[in-house]
Amino acid sequence: MSKLRVAGVLGGMGPLATVDFLYQIIAATPAECDQDHIPLIVHQIPQIADRSRAILEGTDLPFMPMLEGLRRLSAAGCDFAMIPCNTAYHWYERLSNEQPLKILHIVDSVVTALRRRGVAAGSRTLAVLGTRGLHRSGIYRRRLRDLYTLAPGSESVQRLVDGAVQAVKAGQLERGTQLAEQAVRQSLESGAEIVLLACTELPLVLRDTPLMSACIDSTAALARLSIDESRCVAIP
Amino acid sequence: MSKLRVAGVLGGMGPLATVDFLYQIIAATPAECDQDHIPLIVHQIPQIADRSRAILEGTDLPFMPMLEGLRRLSAAGCDFAMIPCNTAYHWYERLSNEQPLKILHIVDSVVTALRRRGVAAGSRTLAVLGTRGLHRSGIYRRRLRDLYTLAPGSESVQRLVDGAVQAVKAGQLERGTQLAEQAVRQSLESGAEIVLLACTELPLVLRDTPLMSACIDSTAALARLSIDESRCVAIP
Repeated sequence: MSKLRVAGVLGGMGPLATVDFLYQIIAATPAECDQDHIPLIVHQIPQIADRSRAILEGTDLPFMPMLEGLRRLSAAGCDFAMIPCNTAYHWYERLSNEQPLKILHIVDSVVTALRRRGVAAGSRTLAVLGTRGLHRSGIYRRRLRDLYTLAPGSESVQRLVDGAVQAVKAGQLERGTQLAEQAVRQSLESGAEIVLLACTELPLVLRDTPLMSACIDSTAALARLSIDESRCVAIP
Repeated sequence: MSKLRVAGVLGGMGPLATVDFLYQIIAATPAECDQDHIPLIVHQIPQIADRSRAILEGTDLPFMPMLEGLRRLSAAGCDFAMIPCNTAYHWYERLSNEQPLKILHIVDSVVTALRRRGVAAGSRTLAVLGTRGLHRSGIYRRRLRDLYTLAPGSESVQRLVDGAVQAVKAGQLERGTQLAEQAVRQSLESGAEIVLLACTELPLVLRDTPLMSACIDSTAALARLSIDESRCVAIP
């Protein structure tokens, strides 16, 4: 076994976004052969209730399956964990408290990505694109409001985001791209200067488009944080 | 939890081929939402000695790490397992005997794919492209020689395959595509009618090329077998 720490991925939310996350980890790892890559155990069990709907309806259905998944990852030998699903971080504190693994926070990874992009605090207006549950939960707002100006959301953009996410989950990637592109464009036209793709279904369909230059990719950001954590590299 | 059986993936050999395998599973699963996808646990720990080299040098280094991985997958709740690495099947019988999970055999999946393609036994000449260790092990030859005419390998094709596999493992995908394309073309020019891509690094770089119509994709074949096994579908 290598000296790299074993990363646990609580995935399946959604399945394709998890695979995209794994791909981002591999693409961002300098490697000459198999053995250079970071060790991972992936719990890709998609039979977890929809996170956004649970937040909106005030139910707790996703919590126990996520907690069980993290416990299995811990028992299987993982040293830390991450969840390639922004909305799932609504349960971050409770998930952290009730099992032994440290969970890397996706919003931390996005803040690091903003810093690496040279976006100084207070300098730019950010739009956050994510599920309705994510916004209701306030995961990003609480963390960013003292650092950046946040553009107000609109129902029109939210409908585009909802449609894009649903399309990706149903495997309709072209439709997902079209809707996500419209959501980013409308956000930029409404005054946002940087758009945070705060749902892991969004970068997946936008990554090959020119609009990505105005976006922060939460999937790639979490992937990079995971590699650093596995290799015990300090974050600047 | 759903009624789908949990699939265990002993991956990391190599890491990108494992991610490609996971993608093939998702792409081949009819799904409208996250919860329709099959549950998986993936042991992506690439710190396993090179399988081909171990076979050629007569060592057993990969065996224990693979066995430990399967035991972890079993302990984590998997119902069956598969290995998206053709050469690893050299250890199939011993891995099957020493831990509880049934392991789906990648050569079975390729034989099923040949049948689905309408390739009747005895009707066609097949070339098998894989690592030197795979050929030495005879995994495909023993299973196929009574069913099909097997084209003899050549050192020239083998060098192209070796180069392609190494390029993919080092993340040089364009170079991998070029070398793999040459290997398939030379095989067809030498009299093969169907080329079995019996190394999971090969379909990954060939899938978007016209040559795939003459090839059988062992990664996609194993993905399809895995979905059927998770859903308890009988193979025709």
